[in-house]
Amino acid sequence: MTRIAKTPEPPYYAVIFTSLRTAEEKGYGVMAEYMAELAAQQPGFLGLESVREELGVTVSYWESLEAIKQWKQQVEHREAQRLGRSDWYAAYKVRIARVERDYHFGTLDD
Amino acid sequence: MTRIAKTPEPPYYAVIFTSLRTAEEKGYGVMAEYMAELAAQQPGFLGLESVREELGVTVSYWESLEAIKQWKQQVEHREAQRLGRSDWYAAYKVRIARVERDYHFGTLDD
Repeated sequence: MTRIAKTPEPPYYAVIFTSLRTAEEKGYGVMAEYMAELAAQQPGFLGLESVREELGVTVSYWESLEAIKQWKQQVEHREAQRLGRSDWYAAYKVRIARVERDYHFGTLDD
Repeated sequence: MTRIAKTPEPPYYAVIFTSLRTAEEKGYGVMAEYMAELAAQQPGFLGLESVREELGVTVSYWESLEAIKQWKQQVEHREAQRLGRSDWYAAYKVRIARVERDYHFGTLDD
């Protein structure tokens, strides 16, 4: 469970990861949680929002395209991507976007 | 329930709408569904992905910033936004982003 990410003033970058799962549960929950923790430790990480019904949407926020590239190439993350394609995901789409503007309503603190 | 949106080649735009609901259910489900249908009829609409647990993430895709502006100002959508702030949402954040690159795994067809 994640909250609304407290990101800095734009511009920054978003990775929109939209996925459909297979029926394979083995290892998925633990890996998904570990990847969220690991992402949060990477240089340039700004925040993450993740929700799943049948469709899953995970948006991670980053300072730069270089930070996104480094995270994509991180060794444990590469292994998770490989397992994702072989076992856990029927399909996914990744979109890399530059956040140009944002606004909010209400308080974003817990 | 939505699927992975079949968007064209980048560049295009994404509106990332992340929200936390109040306990007020009255009218919410019908309005959310109607707004998704109405958005799909707007000029420049490319697709929509929407998922909710406690946190909700809805990403809509658009041809241009002008299309996003027109949708934000659409009369029925303005009324839905007003009701959202008064009744249905404790907090939300809207991020407008330019999708620069995308890639996918698996087939995105149903």
